[in-house]
Order: sequence, then structure tokens, then C-alpha cells
Amino acid sequence: MQCCTQICRVSADWRPSNSPKLIDLLDDTVPGIGTYEDFNTIDWVREKSKDRDRHREITNKSKHSTVALLFSISDAFSGWLLMLLIGLMSGALAGGIDIAAHWMTDLKEGVCLNGFWFNHEHCCWASNETTFQERDKCPQWKTWAELMVGVSEGSVNVLNHFMYVSWALLFAFLAVILVRAFAPYACGSGIPEIKTILSGFIIRGYLGKWTLIIKTITLVLAVSSGLSLGKEGPLVHVACCCANILCHFFTKYRRNEAKRREVLSAASAVGVSVAFGAPIGGVLFSLEEVSYYFPLKTLWRSFFAALVAAFTLRSINPFGNSRLVLFYVEFHTPWHLLELIPFVLLGIFGGLWGAFFIHANIAWCRLRKNTRLGHYPVIEVLVVTLLTALLAFPIEYTRMSSSELISELFNDCGLLDSSKLCGYTSNSGSTSGSVNATAANGLGARLAGPGLYTAMWQLALALVFKMLITVATFGIKVTDLDVFLKAKQNIRAVLRIKPQNDKHFFFFLISTLGGVTRMTVSLVVIMFELTGGLEYIVPLMAATMTSKWVADALSRESIYEAHIRLNGYPFLEAKEEFRHKTLATDVMRPRQSDPPLSVLTQSGMSVEEVERLIADTTYSGFPVVISQQSQRLVGFVLRRDLVISLENARRHQEGVVSVSAVLFTECDPPASPSAPPAVKLHNILDLSPFTVTVHTPMEIVVDIFRKLGLRQCLVIQNGRLLGIITKKDILKHMAQMANRDPESILFN
Amino acid sequence: MQCCTQICRVSADWRPSNSPKLIDLLDDTVPGIGTYEDFNTIDWVREKSKDRDRHREITNKSKHSTVALLFSISDAFSGWLLMLLIGLMSGALAGGIDIAAHWMTDLKEGVCLNGFWFNHEHCCWASNETTFQERDKCPQWKTWAELMVGVSEGSVNVLNHFMYVSWALLFAFLAVILVRAFAPYACGSGIPEIKTILSGFIIRGYLGKWTLIIKTITLVLAVSSGLSLGKEGPLVHVACCCANILCHFFTKYRRNEAKRREVLSAASAVGVSVAFGAPIGGVLFSLEEVSYYFPLKTLWRSFFAALVAAFTLRSINPFGNSRLVLFYVEFHTPWHLLELIPFVLLGIFGGLWGAFFIHANIAWCRLRKNTRLGHYPVIEVLVVTLLTALLAFPIEYTRMSSSELISELFNDCGLLDSSKLCGYTSNSGSTSGSVNATAANGLGARLAGPGLYTAMWQLALALVFKMLITVATFGIKVTDLDVFLKAKQNIRAVLRIKPQNDKHFFFFLISTLGGVTRMTVSLVVIMFELTGGLEYIVPLMAATMTSKWVADALSRESIYEAHIRLNGYPFLEAKEEFRHKTLATDVMRPRQSDPPLSVLTQSGMSVEEVERLIADTTYSGFPVVISQQSQRLVGFVLRRDLVISLENARRHQEGVVSVSAVLFTECDPPASPSAPPAVKLHNILDLSPFTVTVHTPMEIVVDIFRKLGLRQCLVIQNGRLLGIITKKDILKHMAQMANRDPESILFN
Repeated sequence: MQCCTQICRVSADWRPSNSPKLIDLLDDTVPGIGTYEDFNTIDWVREKSKDRDRHREITNKSKHSTVALLFSISDAFSGWLLMLLIGLMSGALAGGIDIAAHWMTDLKEGVCLNGFWFNHEHCCWASNETTFQERDKCPQWKTWAELMVGVSEGSVNVLNHFMYVSWALLFAFLAVILVRAFAPYACGSGIPEIKTILSGFIIRGYLGKWTLIIKTITLVLAVSSGLSLGKEGPLVHVACCCANILCHFFTKYRRNEAKRREVLSAASAVGVSVAFGAPIGGVLFSLEEVSYYFPLKTLWRSFFAALVAAFTLRSINPFGNSRLVLFYVEFHTPWHLLELIPFVLLGIFGGLWGAFFIHANIAWCRLRKNTRLGHYPVIEVLVVTLLTALLAFPIEYTRMSSSELISELFNDCGLLDSSKLCGYTSNSGSTSGSVNATAANGLGARLAGPGLYTAMWQLALALVFKMLITVATFGIKVTDLDVFLKAKQNIRAVLRIKPQNDKHFFFFLISTLGGVTRMTVSLVVIMFELTGGLEYIVPLMAATMTSKWVADALSRESIYEAHIRLNGYPFLEAKEEFRHKTLATDVMRPRQSDPPLSVLTQSGMSVEEVERLIADTTYSGFPVVISQQSQRLVGFVLRRDLVISLENARRHQEGVVSVSAVLFTECDPPASPSAPPAVKLHNILDLSPFTVTVHTPMEIVVDIFRKLGLRQCLVIQNGRLLGIITKKDILKHMAQMANRDPESILFN
Repeated sequence: MQCCTQICRVSADWRPSNSPKLIDLLDDTVPGIGTYEDFNTIDWVREKSKDRDRHREITNKSKHSTVALLFSISDAFSGWLLMLLIGLMSGALAGGIDIAAHWMTDLKEGVCLNGFWFNHEHCCWASNETTFQERDKCPQWKTWAELMVGVSEGSVNVLNHFMYVSWALLFAFLAVILVRAFAPYACGSGIPEIKTILSGFIIRGYLGKWTLIIKTITLVLAVSSGLSLGKEGPLVHVACCCANILCHFFTKYRRNEAKRREVLSAASAVGVSVAFGAPIGGVLFSLEEVSYYFPLKTLWRSFFAALVAAFTLRSINPFGNSRLVLFYVEFHTPWHLLELIPFVLLGIFGGLWGAFFIHANIAWCRLRKNTRLGHYPVIEVLVVTLLTALLAFPIEYTRMSSSELISELFNDCGLLDSSKLCGYTSNSGSTSGSVNATAANGLGARLAGPGLYTAMWQLALALVFKMLITVATFGIKVTDLDVFLKAKQNIRAVLRIKPQNDKHFFFFLISTLGGVTRMTVSLVVIMFELTGGLEYIVPLMAATMTSKWVADALSRESIYEAHIRLNGYPFLEAKEEFRHKTLATDVMRPRQSDPPLSVLTQSGMSVEEVERLIADTTYSGFPVVISQQSQRLVGFVLRRDLVISLENARRHQEGVVSVSAVLFTECDPPASPSAPPAVKLHNILDLSPFTVTVHTPMEIVVDIFRKLGLRQCLVIQNGRLLGIITKKDILKHMAQMANRDPESILFN
């Protein structure tokens, strides 16, 4: 029997028919083969092979007919078309979210009489009675107190405060109810999960249409409710949902999990691109922070998609200026060498704060997870919203939405400006004591009025308040929370007041962001694109590097990785090297005390025996060997494929009974004529499983798993199959070596 | 015997002593084991294992003594220290090169009487007699005609021309002689070779101290001689030389080829950083264009090194302005949507020109390689120099060195400026016909004087001339030539004249550069950092993407890859996927008609038999099997290690004769007491060789080779060893599949 297969294999003409054509498999055989179950890890090698087979088939066909040639060309361009669509859709959604959130934030304070759909700014734009001195005060816009009591001054502020808190609570309640009722996956920042999905894990529905709809609505609600959260992480999630949904229109991407992940990598670049208006920063963010497999092809496509998205957003123009760069602010004064010292110090403080932030946030989330607190998400959200709204209202700068605050702070101070931040006395010529000589050519040349000092003090308070409330908010079970906007908003808040002080604030906030997310290059590029501050490249780089070093010294994980670990996702971290001196034999299953490995033989097993093996075990795949005695490896078959094929044979193939032989060989063994027909499963057998020897150091095995994106790997010694290592085994082993609980890895 | 080893292997306590400790190997045994020969490919997996072993040893020791702890800490920081040193050294060298080239370029035209070491600008700075009107004319600076004949006007220009050409020829001659005599590796751009080295190939001396010295000197000479070449490629080479030399002071990097390549990746970022003053662009250049293995750790280190280098260069300040950004030029006018059409068209032209440039250049180089032209490199260089100098002198803008041209063009046009490019009549208010309305707020608002039109015409001529001469120059056998400066210089040349036209010139040149090098993201970032033109992010991205698409449609290779292929370097391109449907069995050696694979058995061979096998074959390694009959794989041993170990045993181990047994097993087989002592080679045996099955598609094999950086891979079927695939086999197979000559792959 073995001899037969040997001959069959080495004969000259075995190859064309013998090689596993996965494309045929998909087209001809049972549906379901070649797909994955929920909460499983994909096999990158297999997926990429499938795609190459598909591509080859199309190329071959294209040589024979014109229609096929056209199809082949459209297939080649479908990737770029998809990128175009993702860019357009994400850009449009981001623009819509911005406009809606702006309107609803204003709704908390009052309403426009001309039409409730106008926000404060648009309401007063349309008014003829607006004077230049009081641009944002027009008779058409009524605060709630004015509308209900009719008085606009004095003690009615309490009523305004009450309405503000009520609206905030209503928005937050709506958000949390929507998430719980329709799309539980729409909660959270999304970036930890997207990182996990990009590494090859399957979470069905996480990027589905319901998640997209609910996430978009609740993002507007949550931002409007005034919770300390940002649109950035959620926008990455929204962009990935768009990408995933659009993938369904392209066979190439619908059918292939690996190709779809390439698209998702590009989509996460799009998300950051629309959130910050920073296309290059987005591409680098995807590369440095999110993606697992990022070939150069994906780099170019991300670049293109981010470009389209930024362009779409610019066309929608939610911020009312024609620049792509949202907040074009430059530090015009050159920096002095000695200034590097405070910048590096700010980097150190930022790193310390970042590490503390992660620690505090994870402790809070663990508390929520392990105590009864976690059972009342709605109440938790409402309490946090109540606190935020109550405390935020009295200070002008925390009350505002981020976009209002931005336009308040970033417009140049003209003579007609009503903002307190423009409370400079226009007496130029003499410089005040607090503004030193190097800043004399900027705004600082004008004396700061008393209103400015109040504004500064309030801003500083706002900063501290925002930072503390964000610890509690990130990772809350409502909706889409992020650390980005926190820092971003505050950067804005402090950036334009005084050239000298805001520089230091700016650097501190960049460093904090660096400490929390551990981004370096992408952060610096995003800041360039945000502010146009090209002059400050060296200090910015110095501050972010310092911040990263300091934060890394305290703990190795970024906020996203910490959340991935907290949630027990099967994520094989690429940043940290595995440094323990264990061998494959220490990790492989079965252990020495366990029963031997469950294997199938390539022939000689009956349908009943195979079915019993499937029923008795929970393994997701079985190695196929020549015989139980020799244990020489032939191939590997996946449980799912095996179950589907056997069911299919029982149902559709005539004469298959429990004693029918199951054959994984190409040619039939000599069987008695009276025997029932055999079930041939050669086509679901993977003839090229990955193998390592028992002596292979685990560091190399981990490297292979990471780089090739494997699901499992067989362990052999001198040609005999001894065991198997799965991704889960590796993650458990790594957790064990790091003295963590190996059972915290939840999924396959 | 086999039984013995089986017992020996599966017994519980075999592991601690059995696992190959490569660090011990290096310390205890014969020198030379674990190193590579010239023109060979390194084994990334093995090198990284070596480093991890070393790291583990240091960590373990550090727990026992304070000295070892300090050593461990210093070891951890040595990477960053090395980066600091590379940044400092490269920055300083780049500054020195700039200053020297500036002086020598001026020497071609004249000399300073106050001291011959002053360049034109410095000479006149020191002069009191300089008027503002004629800033660059002072009595201390004499042209050669003035010095020799004493007259400064009229027909003596011929004498100046003669002196100009003579100096250029002298510089070029010196450069070519120095390169030929001392450091043949100092010729060429260097980037194709560095790409090959980074992919794991060994070219001893290519990054040595002689190359560094000669490259630095000849770079100055070649730039000064006026050849159409840039400092960018060569500066990458210089930075890599610095890195390689500095690696020798750190054991961690001296001993490990893989770790050293990580440092070299960072160094190539440093090279671009100092060449363009663009640190982030440098990091992206290294990532997108040069590097083979670029983990996130290297990203951060490159970032740091590029920062230090840019900072050092800024401190030296060769361009006399305090900005880090060398040429701070902004397009201040916002762009219109319709302008995208000309930008994309320029992208298409740029891509076409880029593809043509590569084609023409490769054809020229092939001509040089295949005909007798290649035998006279000195004459070729002198002819090109003569042509360049003769033609360049009459036009002012081609005569100038790049840095002169830059300062000429990039300084703001003041009222006191003598440059012809500032020949605007200051009559603002009316706009000339050629300047359209959108540009009215820029320089274009002033009427262009007649001098400006002459200057424009000359610049256009200079552009065409430079482009044609560069085709012949790139890849010439003198010294360090690059395409970068060509475009860079021309960008400068045309950038500041008229806001409307120069924008289009600028985009054309960016697109050309994109077409030649096929960079996208890094190119856009470099252009940002160079010009500060953040406004134009979308059009820039559109133009570079278009250019890349167009050029890719014509030929897939960038100029660097084309040169790598021309030179037959063993470089496994990561950009293009292998798409043919061949299996491992089609590529592996031996072929079906060949004699069987040369293998060693783990025991039972004598020293003489092994030596005969080594002498009869040229393979760089041999698989070790249990027995010739079973062909069950045990491990792999490298030829070099085997030769060294056998020689060592013959020399130092007593009683070893030709009939002594060679054992690769851990425990001795039962031997007769009278037999001579056996040579135990278990410690040089790699027990975890990579294996694939005969059915593995070549696309997967190629992927494994690329991602893991393998040298060879064994092919097995059902536990039997059938063949071997080396990197060279793969490259030959790929060449064959692409209908190229497989014998063009020169090295191992």
C-alpha cells in the first residue's frame, strides 16, 4: 500500500493532477471548505497561496479570450478602485460626523430659531443683525434659559447648566443603549481589536454594517455628550468597517482573508488621515502601530487611499477653511540649542505621565472587569457623563466641543475678535515681563491683557481635568473612546496663546501622547502635518524619543497592547523578542505524559474511525501519516474541511457507509471488489505543512510564526512526526515564561 | 547504532548538553567557525540565534556580579551609543565634504589672494572693499585670467574657460586614479551594492576604512570637477562605511552579521538625512528603498541616528543659515482643484522620462560592460568630464556648483541683489501676461525684467543638458554618482523664479525622480522637509503615485534594482511576487538525471571519506542523515565549519588518522577498543535545518527565503531527504521563469 503511493508519487506525471489546486477546491467542491470559524486564526500562507492560484488562473484565461482579458485587467485595477472607494466613503463619513457633532454640541447650550438644524455658528452667519464685535451673539440663537424663562442674564445660568447636563446625559444614554441593543462590538476605541484582527484573528461582525452604522451614530452622540474621548480611534474603526463592507463587492477580497487584511491595513491609515488631516502620518501610524503584515504594495495603496480620504474631507470642508492642514500653526521663532534641555525634560515628564496613564487605566479596567462595577455599564457611563458635564460647564474651555475650541484658539487674533484669548492690549513696542526677548517678533510683542491671564488659568485647569477624566473614560463600555483627542484638544487649547509657553505645553502633550501610544516617527509626522511646524523637527524628535525611552523603561506595552492583553486576544507581539532558551520539544503537544498525538493514516481508516476521532477530540486539524508505526508525515488536514467533506460524502456520494475506507492518497490501494466505495479526501489534504525539528529553539519558532503568519506547525525528529505547536501553545508558553497566567489567552 | 542515538535523544536529560550553544562554539572552539567567506550569503536565522544566545548569557551572568551587571547595562545601551557615534561622524563628514567641495569648485574659476584656502564667498566676506551692489566681486578674488594676464574683461574668457576645463580634468583624473589605486569599491553610487549587502550578501572591504577615505576624497573631487553627479548616493555609502567601522568597537556588532546589517539600515537613513537635511525622509528612504530587514527597533534607532546627524550638520552649518531645513521654500498660494490635471500629467511625463532614463542608462552600462569601452575607464571619465566642463562653462547655471546655485536661487530677492534671477522690475501692481491671476500674491506680481527671461532660457537649457549628461554619468567607473542631485539641483534651479511655472517644473522633477527611483512616501516626505511645502501634499502625492504607476507599467525595476541585476548580485527582490506554479521538486538539486545528493551519515564515515567528499564537491554545506538507506534527516553541517574542524582535529587531537570515525552523534556507538579515537563533530551540526516538502509551491518557498533570510532549505518527502534548494537555485529559477539568462547570477 505504501509502495503504491510511493510509485504514484515519484512517477513523472503525478504533479499536474496531484498538486492541491485550492481554486478548484473552492469552485468545484463543497461550500465552506477553505473558510474559517469565528474566533479562529487564519493561515496566512494558505490564504496567500489561494490568491496566487486565483491570479494565475485569471492570467492564463486572459490569453484565450478578450472578455477574460478585460476581466483580468479589471481584476488588476480592482485593488486601486477599492482604495478609491474606501477613501471616498471614509472621508465623507468623517465629514458628516464632524458636522453632526458640531451641531449637537451646540444643541446642549441652545437652539437656533431660524431652524433647529443650524448650529450656533451657521445660525449667526445667516443673521443680518450680527455685529462684528459680537460675532457669536445674534438674536436668532437662544440659550435654553432664554427660550424657557426669557431672561438671558444672572441666575438663569443654573438653568443653562441643568439643560447642558441633561442633554449630555440624554446623548450618553442614547449612545450606550444603541450600542447594547444593536452592536455590542461598536464599543471601545477599536484599535486593540483591529490590531488583533490585522494579525490574522477572525471576529465576525466586528467590522460589519451594523457596527458601522451604530459606531457612526454613537460617535456623534458620545462626542456631543462631552465625554473626554476622541474621534481618532473610532474613525479608524469606522474606516475599517467601510473597507470590510466594500470588500464584499470584490471577489478577490471577499474570498480571501489575507488580502482583506491588506485592505484593512490601508483603511487604518485612512482613519488617521481623516481624523487628523494627516495622510502621511496615517500611513506611518498604520505601519508603526497597527499593522501586522505591511508589504510595500500595501504602503503604496495606503498612501493612495489616505490621499483620497484627505481630499474628500477637504472638499466637504467641515472646518470652513480651504487648507488641507486643519490647523496651520507654525512656530516661527528658531529654537536655541539650550532649549533642547527643557524639551528633553518635557519628554521625560510626558513619558512618566504616559506610563502612569496606562497603568491607571488598566487598573481601572481590571477593576471594572473583575468587580460588580462591570455589571452596570449604563449606570457607569451616565455617572461619568454626569461628572464630566457638571464639572466641564463652569470652565469655558472644557464646555466647548473640540472643534469649537479649535476654531476659537486657532483663528488669528484680529482687532474685531471677541475671544478672551485675544485679550492682548494692542500696545506694541514694549514687551511685558513674562514674554522674553526671543518671542518679541510674535504675538508676545503685544501686552497681554487681564482677560488673557484668566483664560490661561482656566486652560491649565481644563488640562488637568481632562487628563484625569480621560483615565476613567478610555475603555469604558459605551462607545468609542480614545486618548488621541484628549491630547490633541489640549495641544490646540494651549498652542496659540503665548509663543513661549505654548511651545512647552505643546511638547509636553506630544510627549504624553508618545508615552501612551509609544509612537515615534508617525507621531512626529502627524504633528508636522497638523501644525506645519517643520522648524521644530529636532526638538520634536528628541522629545518623542525621550518619552518613549522613559515609558518603555517603566513598562513595555503601549495602551493598545495593554488592552489586547487585558482582553486576552491571541496577538503575537512583533516588537518584543522572545528571549528564552526553550526548544520546540518543550512547547509541542502532546507532552511526555499525555497520550500520543491524534493522527490520521493516509489509508486504512474507515469513515467511522475518522468520525470517532473527530468526535473525541477538539483539535482544529489532524496530521496525516503513512502508518501509525512509521509516523512518517504526509500532510495536514483541517478539522473543518474534514467534517464538511465527510458530511458531504455521506449525503451525496452513493454507497458510503461507516465501514467505507477514507483515503488521502491519490491512487487506490488494491481493495476487495465487495468493499464499499472509498471516500477520497486527497483534495483537502495540505501536502506542504510546515515542520520544525524537536531541536529548533523556540525563538526561531516564534519568529517563523510571526513572519509567515502560521496557525500551526508540526514537530518532527529524524523524519518521524512527534507533535504539533499551535499559535495558542506559543502564546501560552510566552505568558508562562513572563510569569503571567497562561489561561488568560482566551481564543484559538 | 541508530537505536543508541534514539535512546540518547529521547532520554529525559539529553537536552541541556545537546542543544547547540553557538556562543560556546565561538568562545571555546576553533576560530573561524560561524563566520562566512567573501561573496557568500549570511544565514539570518543563525546569526540572530547567535545574538540571542549572547544576550542570554550576559543576562544570566548579570545576576551574579555587579561588574557583569554593569557590563549588561552597557551592552544594552551600546546600540544607542553606536547610533550616536554614527550620527556624529556622518554629520561631521558630510559637513566637511560640503565645505571642501565648495572651495574646490571655486578654485576652478579663480583664487583668493588673502589665502588660497578661502572660497569665493568667504574671500569677499573678509573684504572691506565689497559693495552691496557687487557682493560677489571683490579685489581679493582673482579669476585665473586676471592672475595670469592681468586683464579681467574681453577675450580672456577663453583663458578662464581653459583653466576651468583643466581644473575639472585634473580633479576627475585624481579621483579616478585614487579609486583605481586604493579602493576600487569606492566607485559608483553605492546604493545597489548596499541594498545587496543589507539583504545578507558579504562583500568584504566594500564598507572598509580605505573605501571610506577614498570615497570621501573622491566625492569632493568629483563634485568639484563638475560631473553631473550628486552627493546623496555616495553619502549613504559614506555613512554605511562609518557605521561598519564603528561596529568594530562593539563586540555585539562586530561578531554578528545580522546585527551589523540592522546598524547599516540605520546608517543609510543617516546618509539621506545629511544629504537632504531630511531626517524623517531618510528613515523612510531606508525603509522603502534600501532595507531588507527593518524591524520596528531599527526604525526607532534610524530615527535617532538621523536626528543626531541632521543636528551635527546643522551645527557645522555649511550653508550659512541657521535653519535645519536647507532651503525653506513654500508655495504660499493654495492650489486649485483643476490644477490636479496638469500635476497628474506632469506625473505621467515624469514616469515616462524615468523609465526612459533607466533604460538608456542600463543600455549604456551594458555597452560599457560588453565592449572595449570598459577597458579604458580613465579615458571615459576624462572624456565625460571634458564634455561636461566644455559645455557647462558658457551657461552660468551649469557652471556653478550645486551649493552655489542653491544659494543663488534660494536667497530671497532683495533690492540689493546682483543675481540675474532677481531681475524683476519692482513695479508691482500690474501683472505680466505669463503670470496668471492666482499667482498674483507671490513674486509674480512683480514684472519680470529682460534679464530674468535670459536666465530662464539658460536654466531650461541647463535642465536638458544635465538630464542627458546624467544618463552617461550614472554608473560610470570613477566614483560616486547619483541621480538625486541631478533632480535636486534642477528643482532648485527652477523653483524660485516664477511661482506658476516653477511649480510645474518642480512637479515634473519630483515625478522624474519618482520614476527613476520608484520611491513614493519617502520622496514626498523628503520634499516636505526640503521645501516646507506642506500645502501641496495632495498634488505631490498624486504626481508621485502617477509617476510610479506609469514607470512601473513600462518596466518593473527601479534604477537600483536594474543595476543590481546588471551586476548579477544575489538579491531576492521583495517587491515583486513570485507567481509561477512550480513546486519545490522542480527547483531542488539534484535533478532527476543527476547523481544523488551528497550526504554525510551521522556515524559510520571515516575522516578520509568525509575529506574525499569535501574535495569532490563544491557545495557549501552537507545534510547529515541517519543512514544512506533510510535518508532520514538529522541535521545540516556547513562546509566551512567541517573543513576547519577536521583540520583542527588532525592538528590538535591525538591519534586522529584517516580511518578515524567521524561522529555527528552525541553518544558513542559501540566500537572496538583497538579503533583510533573518533572525531566528534556534534557541536558544528545544525540540528534544526529548515525543511519543506517536495509538494511545497515555489511561491511559498520564495516567501520563506525572503522573510526568514535563509541560505538553503532541505527538501523532504514523507520523512526522506530528497534534495536541497539554495538561494542561488531560487534566483536562477526566477531568472529562468522570467526568460532571462540564469547564468547571470554571479555569486552564491
